[in-house]
Amino acid sequence: MSLQQLSSQKVFGGHQVRYQHESAVLNCTMQFAVYLPPQVELGQPLPVLYWLSGLTCTDENFMQKAGALKVAAELGLVIVAPDTSPRGAGVPDDPEGAWDFGLGAGFYVNATQAPWAEHYQMYDYVTAELPALIEKNLPVSDKRSISGHSMGGHGALIAALREPERYQSVSAFAPICQPTQCPWGEKALSNYLGSLRETWVEWDASALMAQATQHRPMLIDQGDADNFLVEQLKPAALEDAAARAQYPLTLRMQPGYDHSYYFIASFIDEHLRFHAQALSAAQ
Amino acid sequence: MSLQQLSSQKVFGGHQVRYQHESAVLNCTMQFAVYLPPQVELGQPLPVLYWLSGLTCTDENFMQKAGALKVAAELGLVIVAPDTSPRGAGVPDDPEGAWDFGLGAGFYVNATQAPWAEHYQMYDYVTAELPALIEKNLPVSDKRSISGHSMGGHGALIAALREPERYQSVSAFAPICQPTQCPWGEKALSNYLGSLRETWVEWDASALMAQATQHRPMLIDQGDADNFLVEQLKPAALEDAAARAQYPLTLRMQPGYDHSYYFIASFIDEHLRFHAQALSAAQ
Repeated sequence: MSLQQLSSQKVFGGHQVRYQHESAVLNCTMQFAVYLPPQVELGQPLPVLYWLSGLTCTDENFMQKAGALKVAAELGLVIVAPDTSPRGAGVPDDPEGAWDFGLGAGFYVNATQAPWAEHYQMYDYVTAELPALIEKNLPVSDKRSISGHSMGGHGALIAALREPERYQSVSAFAPICQPTQCPWGEKALSNYLGSLRETWVEWDASALMAQATQHRPMLIDQGDADNFLVEQLKPAALEDAAARAQYPLTLRMQPGYDHSYYFIASFIDEHLRFHAQALSAAQ
Repeated sequence: MSLQQLSSQKVFGGHQVRYQHESAVLNCTMQFAVYLPPQVELGQPLPVLYWLSGLTCTDENFMQKAGALKVAAELGLVIVAPDTSPRGAGVPDDPEGAWDFGLGAGFYVNATQAPWAEHYQMYDYVTAELPALIEKNLPVSDKRSISGHSMGGHGALIAALREPERYQSVSAFAPICQPTQCPWGEKALSNYLGSLRETWVEWDASALMAQATQHRPMLIDQGDADNFLVEQLKPAALEDAAARAQYPLTLRMQPGYDHSYYFIASFIDEHLRFHAQALSAAQ
């Protein structure tokens, strides 16, 4: 596996670089973005925050809109932003071209159903194949944290709940907390996994939380003016499960904030500092 | 003249609001974005930074990509981002649909030639009509500063050089410093103003600088890896004119930075603090 550099742009003394590579897991060519802070020049391997984006996004949205790079540069934190689905001419999409399923909407699960299973293995891609590629080719350590927004918040939570040994900390902005019980999740899971709901629960943060025994620092911000809060996001389900499992979840309802990148930008610095603390404790 | 609110999104404790209004000067319906920091709730009128965007932009790019709103919220600075040209079905565009002229490319001049003159009066719009509208309808003072990027950096410079009494300070990122002597400027000025080059110089920052007698604090950042530097931007022309006019220009060449919003984001906080200092001295 090798990386082909597509572009490099200087920002806050470091570089935002886009790469292309062949993904064996996804069976297609993928692109991702990485922020390499100025500390890469010091020669010490740096810890990595993986950022999983939401529906319709690509690897570019977070780097352009979150306003995260100033503090990442200050903290010496590498940020990796993968794409949100497999891509390319051979990758099937929602038959009606809907934005909430298929391309741009991989939901960070491993599909088992045709025609999706051939490419839609996003969980294995973002948690295993991509980190291995990055740790082989870029000046980073094996200390990882994970965060994301909406569908990507769901992805970050399930990754840290399924495989806590991979991550030092997890956070999310407006995550889909119970995909087995909301329209976005039900559409995605029934297509990617089939109609047997028993197979869905291993991809549901609230269900995983109820079984969690290994804890990681977990921070969630949710705007109370978010149009998707009641029907799609359901943070109360996660909060209830965390209480039952005695999982140390910090869930903050942020008054007046919506579902947009303006909300993310308003609190991303706090998330970066939260992750940097956990990562530095793990060095 | 009245304002119709299109949207309002909370960010860093304040709000990014988009408005629509009828422009008498441009003879069409326009949209603009404004950041109202949390200090608007204190009831004191706040100073305003006008941000003029570059080619192809709308009122949205700066708010989404510059990462400016955190420090604007800290400083209590209102930021207004106008569109970059008149808009709408009746507004003529480049006959070949090029991105460097016509829609998205008003160049902040007052056109004198048909068919442009009927709508393309962007200088009067951004320096007079829009500030009057904002000062009548929003909780702001009449203390203004101005900044911009590329074509918008040119706009900011000519506004402050032509009418220094309107602005307390001016800054720019990678501005077009001598539009009478570069391809972008020559195309725009010959179309908007006609072939007589004598009429162009009143819209050329370097020419205006040579005549400037009233000084304002002026800060320019320019990346030395900017692909447009040599052919289009020509900061040396402005620097030479400033030296001759003994104008106190701070022009900083920033090694490794390109022409993108990543460059703007890297230095916008310093520009905001620069303007806030000049605005607060003027209160």
